[in-house]
Amino acid sequence: MKIGIVMGSDSDFEIVKKSLDILKEFNISVEVRVLSAHRTSDEALEFAKNAENNGMELLIGAAGKAAHLPGVLASVTTLPVIGLPIKSSTMDGLDSLLSIVQMPKGIPVATVAINGAENAALLAVQILSVKYDELKQSMKDYREIMRLEVLKKNDKIVEITKEYL
Amino acid sequence: MKIGIVMGSDSDFEIVKKSLDILKEFNISVEVRVLSAHRTSDEALEFAKNAENNGMELLIGAAGKAAHLPGVLASVTTLPVIGLPIKSSTMDGLDSLLSIVQMPKGIPVATVAINGAENAALLAVQILSVKYDELKQSMKDYREIMRLEVLKKNDKIVEITKEYL
Amino acid sequence: MKIGIVMGSDSDFEIVKKSLDILKEFNISVEVRVLSAHRTSDEALEFAKNAENNGMELLIGAAGKAAHLPGVLASVTTLPVIGLPIKSSTMDGLDSLLSIVQMPKGIPVATVAINGAENAALLAVQILSVKYDELKQSMKDYREIMRLEVLKKNDKIVEITKEYL
Amino acid sequence: MKIGIVMGSDSDFEIVKKSLDILKEFNISVEVRVLSAHRTSDEALEFAKNAENNGMELLIGAAGKAAHLPGVLASVTTLPVIGLPIKSSTMDGLDSLLSIVQMPKGIPVATVAINGAENAALLAVQILSVKYDELKQSMKDYREIMRLEVLKKNDKIVEITKEYL
Amino acid sequence: MKIGIVMGSDSDFEIVKKSLDILKEFNISVEVRVLSAHRTSDEALEFAKNAENNGMELLIGAAGKAAHLPGVLASVTTLPVIGLPIKSSTMDGLDSLLSIVQMPKGIPVATVAINGAENAALLAVQILSVKYDELKQSMKDYREIMRLEVLKKNDKIVEITKEYL
Amino acid sequence: MKIGIVMGSDSDFEIVKKSLDILKEFNISVEVRVLSAHRTSDEALEFAKNAENNGMELLIGAAGKAAHLPGVLASVTTLPVIGLPIKSSTMDGLDSLLSIVQMPKGIPVATVAINGAENAALLAVQILSVKYDELKQSMKDYREIMRLEVLKKNDKIVEITKEYL
Amino acid sequence: MKIGIVMGSDSDFEIVKKSLDILKEFNISVEVRVLSAHRTSDEALEFAKNAENNGMELLIGAAGKAAHLPGVLASVTTLPVIGLPIKSSTMDGLDSLLSIVQMPKGIPVATVAINGAENAALLAVQILSVKYDELKQSMKDYREIMRLEVLKKNDKIVEITKEYL
Amino acid sequence: MKIGIVMGSDSDFEIVKKSLDILKEFNISVEVRVLSAHRTSDEALEFAKNAENNGMELLIGAAGKAAHLPGVLASVTTLPVIGLPIKSSTMDGLDSLLSIVQMPKGIPVATVAINGAENAALLAVQILSVKYDELKQSMKDYREIMRLEVLKKNDKIVEITKEYL
Repeated sequence: MKIGIVMGSDSDFEIVKKSLDILKEFNISVEVRVLSAHRTSDEALEFAKNAENNGMELLIGAAGKAAHLPGVLASVTTLPVIGLPIKSSTMDGLDSLLSIVQMPKGIPVATVAINGAENAALLAVQILSVKYDELKQSMKDYREIMRLEVLKKNDKIVEITKEYL
Repeated sequence: MKIGIVMGSDSDFEIVKKSLDILKEFNISVEVRVLSAHRTSDEALEFAKNAENNGMELLIGAAGKAAHLPGVLASVTTLPVIGLPIKSSTMDGLDSLLSIVQMPKGIPVATVAINGAENAALLAVQILSVKYDELKQSMKDYREIMRLEVLKKNDKIVEITKEYL
Repeated sequence: MKIGIVMGSDSDFEIVKKSLDILKEFNISVEVRVLSAHRTSDEALEFAKNAENNGMELLIGAAGKAAHLPGVLASVTTLPVIGLPIKSSTMDGLDSLLSIVQMPKGIPVATVAINGAENAALLAVQILSVKYDELKQSMKDYREIMRLEVLKKNDKIVEITKEYL
Repeated sequence: MKIGIVMGSDSDFEIVKKSLDILKEFNISVEVRVLSAHRTSDEALEFAKNAENNGMELLIGAAGKAAHLPGVLASVTTLPVIGLPIKSSTMDGLDSLLSIVQMPKGIPVATVAINGAENAALLAVQILSVKYDELKQSMKDYREIMRLEVLKKNDKIVEITKEYL
Repeated sequence: MKIGIVMGSDSDFEIVKKSLDILKEFNISVEVRVLSAHRTSDEALEFAKNAENNGMELLIGAAGKAAHLPGVLASVTTLPVIGLPIKSSTMDGLDSLLSIVQMPKGIPVATVAINGAENAALLAVQILSVKYDELKQSMKDYREIMRLEVLKKNDKIVEITKEYL
Repeated sequence: MKIGIVMGSDSDFEIVKKSLDILKEFNISVEVRVLSAHRTSDEALEFAKNAENNGMELLIGAAGKAAHLPGVLASVTTLPVIGLPIKSSTMDGLDSLLSIVQMPKGIPVATVAINGAENAALLAVQILSVKYDELKQSMKDYREIMRLEVLKKNDKIVEITKEYL
Repeated sequence: MKIGIVMGSDSDFEIVKKSLDILKEFNISVEVRVLSAHRTSDEALEFAKNAENNGMELLIGAAGKAAHLPGVLASVTTLPVIGLPIKSSTMDGLDSLLSIVQMPKGIPVATVAINGAENAALLAVQILSVKYDELKQSMKDYREIMRLEVLKKNDKIVEITKEYL
Repeated sequence: MKIGIVMGSDSDFEIVKKSLDILKEFNISVEVRVLSAHRTSDEALEFAKNAENNGMELLIGAAGKAAHLPGVLASVTTLPVIGLPIKSSTMDGLDSLLSIVQMPKGIPVATVAINGAENAALLAVQILSVKYDELKQSMKDYREIMRLEVLKKNDKIVEITKEYL
């Protein structure tokens, strides 16, 4: 199992790293690239066009501002493309979100929350699990662990508030 | 191949119908439901919990306003869930979009454009094609037809503008 | 008199604490929980379903981003549910606000200001005071104290500006 | 059981009427007023100040644009005040929503969705049901009817789509 | 010549102080108050109702969030009321701006920029100068000084950039 | 008493006409112009520069989209300038509002609601009434009539709802 | 003199036609294409890459929603690219605007107003006039005609209002 | 080759400096001015009116808030005017962007991203390169360098992630 992650700028890595942490946990191989849709248009297109032949089964595109990258990747591959809007220094991420999610008819991008790098990876896992049964179980385990973590936090806050009130 | 589509209100059907047209074209079976996340909470959860066992491999949730439905479905299944924000009579669809896409860490929803019913279906096809090779080719054909349609429209506009100028 | 407060994440506690301060002042018991609508869907629903039987007369749901929690609680109880939108790191709280307030027909959530934890608690008191006469008087006293505090601040600023001008 | 409804302009009546339909169904008496917070400031304040003495247990304030009415009512009564933002001809209701919901610390307004007249009334019923047990059951019945209506619509759409696909 | 300034909270003073600096420069007397439209409704109304009789010729109302104060003042006086929207911790000032500027037909508020305390004061001076000829000249002098300051800054930047380029 | 009204386009006249109705009622003379800040920059500036000498005591600037007109007028006169944002075919008036109200330090524009032509005129009257005592009384009468109109509408709705409920 | 216009969909032609009217008036040749950045990615890129060799000196890209087209064209040519955001059925054009104007560092797009087809063309003329002196004069004439048209409209409104008042 | 840059305030220089760095690199002369459209209206207009005669071939206008400067410059010259919206302390740059880009029919401003000073300069170079062939090649070289820089960053991230995963 292998997926590709393309980010529009190396400054996005701080966020994208959280996707890698998740994918590693699920033993999914990742090819990571920094390829601007505008400054390295050819390389970005090339990467997406060859992704399927290079064994990737899904792409994540992370970009900020007028975030064309996920849409540009999606336009030259039929692999599912997940769009991860990155918040930049103005407009609080709204520009990235709209540039990624409002794709015109024909070429969808599966958009997750602004800076939602963990969810981009988890969505990738869920998509791959349509094919790979082992991921289905891993994802259920992951959910269970998450559930238990919340419940532990709950216990702690219940404790704290008991004293507090 | 089967997927489930849940819409929050029967008034969403006008939009959701466009998803059905696409899915029919790709020979994908669909179970369609009208199940409000709030007014029929139990039934909506039940549907999503059993979706995998009932042979569905992916869910589409379509909803407007404070559109919780896709997130609620996603919270009880590990199948990929596509969120389709429906524009309602106020806020121009921004409320639906944000309510669907801004999912907290842990439970992603693959969000498409506001009223983007065709893209919800096409994304479903692309996700299923990770597993089903026959869909890969169908999707490539679909893209090619789309490309030719645009080019035909291009020819027509080239003609019109030649006379116009 | 007892109410329930559910927050979607323990990171919301910093804000929610201000609700507790108010409720303590009015001698209202509170059951506090950290229960994500998505990561601990069953527990959140369970808590809300049993709230009435467990002696709670009202619920406050606090959540950020695609803040489904208050609506999800409201869908399985007929107790009044107050929604407290929490500002997260993107979109300045607008996503939480719209996800909470724009509830579809049938299941209302009584929404207060973004991060308005004090007002969530005061609204709870006002709602309970419909039933409990003693709260009516306490609330009138609270208002009077608030009024005097503003007037004291006024006196101070009147002083300062006299010298300033 | 009696509540008061104040709307800022008679043009809001088209929306507010839907609140009346609900309240009638639950046998709740209503005093209805058209009282602008700005053009008839004294009368609006007078109405709110006397509401409790006149037997009202809750107020609904409906207003558009810079919708101060609910907040103004809330400032002179300790009855719970529900705010109903009305969409006017510009800004798609966002101005009304923010003017009502973003109340400063101390004076909460229980805000419902833009043009959400039904939910304003249902919230009123839920708040009164804290005190009046008979309303609790009526509300549960109402919810059940709503649930069955959705399920009926579901059956219809299931039928339609079966033929459609 | 005397005007009144009412701010909704003493935390607004940091901004409002800049209005005072300007008014002092133009020798305009100011009565300053901290009076919340909601927490000290009566006092705020009283102040505005008596403003004319107390020799004030214009009011400035400064407030944040659901900023009703300027509109509330305007509703009980026919003196011109200037609205100064204060940016609070969420929504970047948009809530204050819309709550102040979108006044319904009949009761205008002369709104200036978010946190635009200097402009609120300068607008006051320009309004008073309709009556007081001496202010007309002072304002023209003020404008000329402003102009010269910009030109001086221009000279400095012209210098800097010459070396820079 | 005379004021000037400049609108950026003759298409704004439909809205601006409502200002004229009010001003006529108060016997205020008006010089009306259609002068784009951009297409007839010189004429617009000329008009504003000479306004004071031509006996005008205040200007109203009405414009849509990137609505520079009121600010441009304000930059060359020390008369008070009222800005009236006109809603155009995109952005629901937000562009006009921000372009008019967010004036930088030094040159204020007294902004009223989007399409708030009546309020622009009423604000003009209130500003002039600082100087002209006769307007003070007329404005008080106007307010009283407005008040009575609301009360009449109130009576009617009270009637209607009595039958309705 | 020749420029290229690419629109993302033939539905944009209604708007783009107004650009053609202007360009015709200035005797500028135009190659018009309908080429979606996503559905006909190769053709769009090809057109832009060859534009310079095919004698075009500037490109206009018109697109709606997640409007990547102008940025995509700009990424493969060093000709100036003008971006024309088209308003679609949701989000009032804000998505198109942000997707076009918020281009990341390195690849600018010269953005005009939403649906501002005339201005896209006029900007093209102004850019070409840097090189072609004859256009400079034509543009000055055009401006003068525009000025006279506004003045004529002014005369008419002055007439109308004289009678009206 | 010479262009003019006008900024509305010397506080914009921190951003505008990045334009100068680019223009220096391309050996383009620049006349830089600090001239507020409102506080030094005459000087700003004078500068723009004489720009062409003073050998400038293009103007860049940088301004924040109600950013009229670029439009005001454009109204008195037929040189292309590039608008650079500067983010100020409220509204996250949206006010500047809309005030610059939403220019009415007739007078376009070529708008770049909020705080996009580099792109303002690069757009200037691309516009001048329509006339000056030497710039065409420099721009192609610049693009190639940019491309290589991205690829170098890509190599580095590929390295980092290999170890990371």
